[in-house]
Formats: sequence, structure tokens, C-alpha cells
Amino acid sequence: MTARNAFYAQSGGVTAVINATACGLIETARSHPDKIGAVYAGRHGIIGALTEDLIDTSRESPDAIAALRHTPAGAFGSCRYKLKGLEQNRAEYERLIDVFRAHDIGYFFYNGGGDSQDTSWKITQMAQSVSYPLTCIGIPKTVDNDLPITDTCPGFGSVAKYVAVSVREAAFDVASMAKTSTKVFIMEVMGRHAGWIAAAGGLAQEHPGDAPHLILFPEIPFDEPRFLERVKEAVDREGYCVIVASEGIKNAAGEFLSEAGTRDAFGHAQLGGVAPVLARIVKEALGYKYHWAVADYLQRAARHIASKTDVEQAYALGRAAVELAIAGKNAVMPIIIRKSDSPYVWAIGEAHLSEVANVEKKMPREYIGEDGYGITAACRRYLAPLIQGEDYPPYENGLPRYVHLKNEAVPKRLTAAFQPAK
Amino acid sequence: MTARNAFYAQSGGVTAVINATACGLIETARSHPDKIGAVYAGRHGIIGALTEDLIDTSRESPDAIAALRHTPAGAFGSCRYKLKGLEQNRAEYERLIDVFRAHDIGYFFYNGGGDSQDTSWKITQMAQSVSYPLTCIGIPKTVDNDLPITDTCPGFGSVAKYVAVSVREAAFDVASMAKTSTKVFIMEVMGRHAGWIAAAGGLAQEHPGDAPHLILFPEIPFDEPRFLERVKEAVDREGYCVIVASEGIKNAAGEFLSEAGTRDAFGHAQLGGVAPVLARIVKEALGYKYHWAVADYLQRAARHIASKTDVEQAYALGRAAVELAIAGKNAVMPIIIRKSDSPYVWAIGEAHLSEVANVEKKMPREYIGEDGYGITAACRRYLAPLIQGEDYPPYENGLPRYVHLKNEAVPKRLTAAFQPAK
Repeated sequence: MTARNAFYAQSGGVTAVINATACGLIETARSHPDKIGAVYAGRHGIIGALTEDLIDTSRESPDAIAALRHTPAGAFGSCRYKLKGLEQNRAEYERLIDVFRAHDIGYFFYNGGGDSQDTSWKITQMAQSVSYPLTCIGIPKTVDNDLPITDTCPGFGSVAKYVAVSVREAAFDVASMAKTSTKVFIMEVMGRHAGWIAAAGGLAQEHPGDAPHLILFPEIPFDEPRFLERVKEAVDREGYCVIVASEGIKNAAGEFLSEAGTRDAFGHAQLGGVAPVLARIVKEALGYKYHWAVADYLQRAARHIASKTDVEQAYALGRAAVELAIAGKNAVMPIIIRKSDSPYVWAIGEAHLSEVANVEKKMPREYIGEDGYGITAACRRYLAPLIQGEDYPPYENGLPRYVHLKNEAVPKRLTAAFQPAK
Repeated sequence: MTARNAFYAQSGGVTAVINATACGLIETARSHPDKIGAVYAGRHGIIGALTEDLIDTSRESPDAIAALRHTPAGAFGSCRYKLKGLEQNRAEYERLIDVFRAHDIGYFFYNGGGDSQDTSWKITQMAQSVSYPLTCIGIPKTVDNDLPITDTCPGFGSVAKYVAVSVREAAFDVASMAKTSTKVFIMEVMGRHAGWIAAAGGLAQEHPGDAPHLILFPEIPFDEPRFLERVKEAVDREGYCVIVASEGIKNAAGEFLSEAGTRDAFGHAQLGGVAPVLARIVKEALGYKYHWAVADYLQRAARHIASKTDVEQAYALGRAAVELAIAGKNAVMPIIIRKSDSPYVWAIGEAHLSEVANVEKKMPREYIGEDGYGITAACRRYLAPLIQGEDYPPYENGLPRYVHLKNEAVPKRLTAAFQPAK
């Protein structure tokens, strides 16, 4: 068997550790030159495959590839681009196969969330239908932690750690100042559809009464009077109130709170931010001085405070993807299997792409406290291991030394250009 | 000479390293039991002195005091409370002297910004006028970096590091996604009156073209058409645009942009946040997909990514305050003197409180690039040393282990209660 080339693409929102997965994958592929030739990465994800814009990772030095392990975001570029169904846009799938054939690509590695695993599964089926020999391996990635079967998704543990650390630190600040200044602090975090990231804020709490005093989950409809009551209780009892709010909280009518009824003086819809909306509600009803923060991209890019566990899992899944491929597996995704909570013991397993595609793992209701404003012991048992350990990047001149790859293009071999659908 | 007690208070907005100053001060005081008896801290700052609510720091273990070095925010509580002038509210100054007399306090250490140094100076004068023997030492602290004479203020270097690291990380994220998603990212930082913190965002830039592409300073009136032109240029050239915006930017009429003309559907003023205002301006004029972050307290509480230089200076100034006091100095503030930029060599000096009180150090115009949107080489030379080095706190269960002191009260000795002015 002669070695064939591999294609790797990063998909969707990037994370602090998706490059660690790329690192594990490329380093492992390089150690099997008999099976895998070059690893080509898609420039801007799958769009790079469609447009035949491939990056030759074999032009990067071992040091540069090793540095991916501690570099956040997507080193080859990612994209938000969902391939349509096979019936709706067969041309795109055919194009992918054309590009793969032109570059002798025998391995397809797709690093993303549920949509991406669905795409991987469709590409598997397409390749089979045209008898193109292609090994398709999905690799999990998403800060949303919503892929099924796997214990967790790389990227989530580091966001969780960032949020827990930030909430703890901000709470120390607010506690210091509450006597004469800020009494209510609201931190808005990601998670439009599930409360996993908001829940991680609960890890900041060490003792009862510690911050956060309230967590607002997208799973629990926002009840303004109850919310205000709880804010007042916390301020009366602790002197201050720290709130972690998911960006995705909705009112009883199912509308996002960040969009409901907020327009500026010119009638423009206000652009995002549930934290300022909550701040206004608190200020008007209770009169407390408030502050709010919106972490936005900072939370998912914060490689400086990444979870060591998360980095190790991200790397291990990249390595496992190659190992599964050269072991002859197809249409699978390596996953994390939890063997025990404490100490946290995990191993790599695998799931079939058809089981993973388009299945969303919701946060179990039993992870949210009965009152809807906190996390349960079961949730804490699940989350706590995921933020364990620190894995600091190297620093230079006071700043993390992140790598910029050369990202040299593979010469094109096809004459036809291709325009992605949207 | 018998030992007399010391009073220490934290004032104004807290920082990631003000407790490192407390640590230096208390450890040094403990090593001079012949001169200094107990160190009493004001609970919630100067309010603790006015209300005779003193914390006996001698009840804390050496380990707990040592842990202050790596614990953010104000361990004894701080306050925003400015004593009025001697003429306007002599009663408050008399009360302070009464409390000090009752507890044999011979040393007054006030850890704060310009207002606090003004208060220290007034207390010096008051003590002299009633012949109460009191040594008054100010200790600098402010993330705003606006105290005169000293090279920098403890707290600033760590905010600067947080902002530079965060901008670099977020920029990697945006660069990964810009092809199909977010093209403009805005990070709002503190600094209502001076652009020091915004300027620190400029340190994230390594090569020309790197983020941040625009820095918006409060010193430069916001010019919407020019701003939009520059955003478009960056997106055309780099594919994306990262903006660091001071919370204090103003329009040509001198109004804060965060307050100008933004009301919600019910006519409520929108509560803070210049980043969403800028996002709307960009979206409406240029149509780019945007994201924005408001770091708020996270930036000044972020002990996990504190500058080692800042921590060392904060500690050294606390130690120096005690050393100046026992050397018989009065009405002075220890300061940082810069001996050289690179390598950064600094020493402790001193300034008289009368020179420091109510003098604000502005950012020099020559630190802002000619076009008003970036920092100059001179600014970089000044800022770069201040973020050098990492000083990680210890971790437990994936989270920084910050200390909660016992904060036991000193028994009251005065019969009269006292109500602070406001």
C-alpha cells in the first residue's frame, strides 16, 4: 500500500485548543509516512477544499507544528459554511471528490461540531457511491459541549475554566467594593442554546454564599419578578450579588432577552448583550449600582488559561483520528470516555458518524438546581474534572508566543474554478 | 521608643495587586515589632476608621498574609469615599484622630489614587494642627496609571497585561473566522479619562498589520467618518479589523459616546457600553458582521494573568511604606523610579504628598500616533516593561486558590458612634 495524502479542516467557531488537535493529528501523521503522505489543510475550512485552496502543512517545521499545541484559534482558518444535503447540492460533494482525487487524498479529517459530523457522514456516503476510496474521520470540537456520546468536547473545558476563574476573580472585586459601590455584577457568557458554559461559572463557588449567587440558563425561562427577588435576597444577605448569564436566556414568550424590546433613540435594534438588559432591569427595580461584562470571544480564545485536561484531550483526539484511520476504520469519530469522576480517568473510544450527526446533547435538567438558579452536585461532579490543570503557553516580552504558520498553498491541479453556494 | 500601632486602608477601585502591597506592608511591619505593634486595617477602607471598625491583621497567620500577594481585590474591603476639605467637614478629621488616639495608632498608611493622597496630606496637616503624633504615608495604587512622579502605579501593569493578552488572543480568533463570519471585533476597556489602558492593547501588535488595527483613546474626539474609513481599510487590507476602545471616548461635542443618544424602546437610557454603540455604527454604515466584548472588572481582577513586574512593585511599595515610616519620614509616598527602559531597571524613591495630591498624570500626546489611532514607539518603550513576567497564583481543583482572611474586629474603645457624611 502506498501512502496517500490527508485533508484536514477546521470547522465552525474556533476554540483555545482546536490547534492542539491539529498538532496531534499532524504529528501523528508525520510518524506514519508509510501510510500518510502530506497533510493538506483547508484554507478557511471546507471552503478551502471546495475552492482547491489547500495548505501544505508539510512545509511547516516540527517546531511550528509543535507550537500549535499552545496556540488558540484556527491556524488554517475556519468557516461557518454548512454543506447542503446530497440531493440539494450534489455538485458540492462531487467537487470535493474531484479535488480529493486531483490531490490523491485518501483521508478526510473534519474537526468540528454536530453539523460538521453530519457533513463528514454525507461525504463518506458520497465517496462510497462513486467508489472513491476515502477514509472519513470526524474529530469533535465545540465550546458548546453539545456533541452526543463523547464525555466532553475539546474547547469546552478551557472556556469553562476561563469562566470559572473570571467569575471568582470578579467576585472578589465586587465583594471588596460593595459597601459603597457596585452591588450587582453580571457576567454574560456564551451558550445560545445550552447552559453548559453558564453552569461552569458555578464552579467558582467554594462555600455556600460564595459567588455566583445566580446563574441564568437558557433552559429556564426568565422570570423577572423571581429574578429580582433573588437578587435582593443575595444583596441583603451577602452585601452583593454576582450573576452569570447565558447569552441565550429567553423570556416566557420564548424571545431572547437580549433582543426583546431594546431599541435606541433612533429606533435601531440594540445589537446584542443580555448583560446590559439585566443591568437595566436591576437598576430600575432595585436601584443598585451595577457593573457588567461580556466576555465574548475572549472566553473561547483564552489559551493563556486553558484547561490542561482539555489540551490533553484535544491533542489525544487528533492523534486518535489518525490512528483510527490507519487502522482501517471509516466513518467514525474518536470520543472521550469517562472511566471515573474523581480521580478523573478517561480513555479514547469511538462513535459512528451516523450516531453523532445532528444529535444535540442537552444539559440534563438534573444538573440545574431545583430553583433554576444554580448547579447541582451531579453537575459539579461532571464539570469539575474538565477544568483541571494549567497548561501555560510560553511567553516572550510579557505576551504569549503564539505561532503564525506559513500556510503555503498547494499548487492547483484543476482547471475549473468553483464557487461555494453562498 | 515604644512600638505604636499602624492603620492601613485600601481606597477606591481595587486591583489585581493591591493585596500584594498589603502583604509587603504587613510582613515588613511584623519584622519590626520594636517600632510597630499591630497593623489594623480599615474595614471597607477609610470608612472603617471613621466608624471605628478596625480589623486586627495580627490575628492572621503568616501563611494567610503571604497569600495576599497572589490574591486580587481588596482583602479588607475598599470604598469610594472622599473626605471633604478640612474646612467643610472638620468633624470627620477630628473623628479619625479620636479613633487613632483610642487605638494608639502612630502610623497611617493610605493605599490609593490621587484623591487618597490628597486625603493623606490633609490628615497629616490635621494631626499636626492638634499635635497628635502621626506618621502619614501614602502608597500608590490605581489601574488608571494617573499618579504623577511615580513611573507607574501598581495595578496598571496587570490590567495592561490582561488587555494585551486578551486582544492578541481575540485577534487570532477573528483572523480565523473572518472569511465567512465576524469581520470587526471591538474590545472595550477601562479608562474613563485617560487612554493608558487602551494604549496597552497596542502591545498585542507584533508586526505591522497585526491587531489591534485601531485604538480609540478618550484623548482623541471620535470622528465617525474617519473611523469608518479606517475600519473599512483594515477589513479590505487584512480581512478583519480589531478595535480597542476606551470606555471614555467622546464625540466632538464632548459627550461620552456610550451615553449619546442611546435609549431603549421605553425611553430608558442604555446603561453603559461604548462597544455596542460602535458595533451599531459599523454595522449600519459598512454592514460587517461584528462581535464585541466588555471586560469590565475582569480586567482589573485578573490576578491569574498579573504582570510579575507589577506584583513585585506593588509588594516593594508596601514594604517601602513601612521602611519610610520607621526611618522617620512623614507625608511622603514611595514611588517607582525608572532607571532604564530595556532592560527595565527600577528603584524605589519617594515624593512628598503635597506634590502628589490631586495632580493627574495625563497620557502624553506623543504617545498617541499622529493619526490618533495607535501608539508610538515611545509609548511602547514606556509600556513594554510594565507587563513583563508572569506570576501565577497557586491552583487547586483547577481554580486559583485565593485567600479569605478572618478579618476579626478590634474591640471598640469609643462610646460615640459616627455616621460618615454620605
